[in-house]
Amino acid sequence: MKAIRVGLLGIGTVGGGVWSVLTRNAGEIARRAGRPIAIVAVADRNLERARAVVGEQALADGVRLTEDAFSVVNDPTIDIVVELIGGYTVAKELVLAAIAAGKHVVTANKALLAVHGAEIFAAAQEKGVMVAFEAAVAGGIPIIKALREGLAANRIEWVAGIINGTTNYILTQMDQRGLSFDGALQEAQALGYAEADPTFDIEGIDAAHKATLLASLAFGVPIQFDKAYVEGITRIDARDVAHAEALGYRIKLLGIAKRREQGFELRVHPTLIPKDHLLASVSGAMNAVLVKGDAVGQTLYYGAGAGSEPTASAVIADLVDVTRLHTADPENRVPHLAFQPDQVQDVAALPIAQCRSCYYLRLNVADRPGVLAEIAHVLAKESVSIAALVQKEPIAEQAELVLLTHETEEQAVDAAIAGITALPFVVGSVTKLRVEHLT
Amino acid sequence: MKAIRVGLLGIGTVGGGVWSVLTRNAGEIARRAGRPIAIVAVADRNLERARAVVGEQALADGVRLTEDAFSVVNDPTIDIVVELIGGYTVAKELVLAAIAAGKHVVTANKALLAVHGAEIFAAAQEKGVMVAFEAAVAGGIPIIKALREGLAANRIEWVAGIINGTTNYILTQMDQRGLSFDGALQEAQALGYAEADPTFDIEGIDAAHKATLLASLAFGVPIQFDKAYVEGITRIDARDVAHAEALGYRIKLLGIAKRREQGFELRVHPTLIPKDHLLASVSGAMNAVLVKGDAVGQTLYYGAGAGSEPTASAVIADLVDVTRLHTADPENRVPHLAFQPDQVQDVAALPIAQCRSCYYLRLNVADRPGVLAEIAHVLAKESVSIAALVQKEPIAEQAELVLLTHETEEQAVDAAIAGITALPFVVGSVTKLRVEHLT
Repeated sequence: MKAIRVGLLGIGTVGGGVWSVLTRNAGEIARRAGRPIAIVAVADRNLERARAVVGEQALADGVRLTEDAFSVVNDPTIDIVVELIGGYTVAKELVLAAIAAGKHVVTANKALLAVHGAEIFAAAQEKGVMVAFEAAVAGGIPIIKALREGLAANRIEWVAGIINGTTNYILTQMDQRGLSFDGALQEAQALGYAEADPTFDIEGIDAAHKATLLASLAFGVPIQFDKAYVEGITRIDARDVAHAEALGYRIKLLGIAKRREQGFELRVHPTLIPKDHLLASVSGAMNAVLVKGDAVGQTLYYGAGAGSEPTASAVIADLVDVTRLHTADPENRVPHLAFQPDQVQDVAALPIAQCRSCYYLRLNVADRPGVLAEIAHVLAKESVSIAALVQKEPIAEQAELVLLTHETEEQAVDAAIAGITALPFVVGSVTKLRVEHLT
Repeated sequence: MKAIRVGLLGIGTVGGGVWSVLTRNAGEIARRAGRPIAIVAVADRNLERARAVVGEQALADGVRLTEDAFSVVNDPTIDIVVELIGGYTVAKELVLAAIAAGKHVVTANKALLAVHGAEIFAAAQEKGVMVAFEAAVAGGIPIIKALREGLAANRIEWVAGIINGTTNYILTQMDQRGLSFDGALQEAQALGYAEADPTFDIEGIDAAHKATLLASLAFGVPIQFDKAYVEGITRIDARDVAHAEALGYRIKLLGIAKRREQGFELRVHPTLIPKDHLLASVSGAMNAVLVKGDAVGQTLYYGAGAGSEPTASAVIADLVDVTRLHTADPENRVPHLAFQPDQVQDVAALPIAQCRSCYYLRLNVADRPGVLAEIAHVLAKESVSIAALVQKEPIAEQAELVLLTHETEEQAVDAAIAGITALPFVVGSVTKLRVEHLT
């Protein structure tokens, strides 16, 4: 059968991986897809780099290199455009132009979809083309496919994932080797696990882009990144890592989407999870997503969440999917966001104040009698119930107090913290972290 | 849109789960599938049981109950037949009759597919209908979909899975509580994790059925259950569990499919795996499958491998898949076994003698000088190299010896065992288990 003709926009780390894997496994992939999948044009700002990856033989065989990505998007001989440029601006124009030109699109761009997904998927629907984005969440792990198809029988109750490798690498080093956040970040940068400007990763924004997409796939709700609660790991203290460990927990940056009666929770933040939970064993730059469905119970998906070939694996799986399915009647294709577009329910993400969790609180108090009773009193007033409490030996007449609460609404715990902070014997501020048992 | 009409054959544990979940989540499922999916006929030998599950309201609404499964298969108003009868005989006739009648089939029957899959898939291909079987391997975990679609970019190197919950439950109890095999089996039976006749599970046959299917999906080779090497867990001694633990390993019944230059390995047997490996943490009746792809690296899929609703989750995911995709041109559908039927390569499973593994050997020797040297000599003669050796304090002038080998071909280790057994100071037979590091 005739080859599927692919135009590749961007041949950096992931694009280079796509080129390599598609070339190396051409035979295996064609055996699966029913026809060859061939990259016939590559657009990149750096033609020298592109030329080095593609190689002279492929160029002699007719692969076209260009700096002009729009010429690829508008090339009438191309069936699928792969967008690996990243960012919101040019990438958006290119994806919309590709759709307008009637081409199917494969992208790894979570930022673009989390912010402009509604517009992009609507355009694709209108035009009858597919937009596939397995590589946008958790790299090579086929979690989009699992949520969209494999778990389609279930009412999804929640999704919780370690979906940013950089922060998991940093937290793992803090936990296993007692490093400070700054020390672990510097090491991650030296090893290439963190970028020179790590803001997107360490502030939780990248994880929030991904959690936003997972929430839409799980619940059939609109994409609403602007409503996500986002808290990064920059304020995690080595003391909190050690206290968590002693209490039987490990701190992970989780992306959480949880169904609630009044809406759904969409939040990214450092989270204490039980040490003996499978998710707590996910270390280094690895990713894992845990999904709770009402019929299947918990299922977990684990693997490399980033990197050249793992991400390329997901991009190419999408190419095979599009190749296999693009001839189907658009009405009967798998919907982009798992639910039929006219069946998306206009349910809103809840503000963080209305989210429910257990909490870890750490504070310093003057070492004198009656302190615990007064703190317990403030918590009780807000109906926050204490699950565990550890008081450390006082140093210089100050004692460090760590307590875990049972599940409560965030605004209750915030009110209690305000009350506790106002107590005369409390020194400095109260550190608050969330605790999830994932059952 | 018009409902998809389903005929259900067998409404026992899994069939009852399919009925419940499809009823309970009807809205959610229709929002995904684009149309309602309705069971319109149920065949079961036990009409009373069927009536109790289905309920009077559904019967009043027109759901048909019958003892005659063939009347469902031949009902011209039915689009998809779900086969949950099990076994090789009637189930095979029914599935082939459904295909002949132009119906799509969803089945959870691994035994049927592992033994008669070639014939069934060929008939479906000929007739242009889909046969979906996500529920046949690892219950609710969408591992078939992951291998067939999600990892389609990869040359799969190997698959290793805990794919039988009964044996994993028994081995977990032996490991965590020091139970004997018989004690753990009795408990598993009392708790419903093992059947009254547990042969299929504890002898590894069920796992071998599943591993056979995984191998075909991973490598694009014919289904060849008859060539699988199958060894159950009945001879696992509590001593071996304890020795393994002390050496840093845990014993799991693994189904393994591994690509080799001369063919592929297809084997099910108790296996020592490193305690700190994620797969070693899979306890109780849970399942997990680890897949190594050349591009993506290792990915893991974890969840409930059996039970009413987890298995129903997979059956219904297949119903949604068929609903979404059955209008596609059959040539462009996802192939049943991941590879296009004309692209299946006639590669054979290797005999166990040619498989490669590391080994655990346990033996008793008379406590006298020179014993270790002579054993080491026999191993060296067969080029089997020793990775670790533990000699226990002698009791009654006999010492127990445990050794781990580096990777070698099974026939070499078997020759060495024959040589060792013939040594005059070796008492009784040599216990052999395989060790996999899963890297």
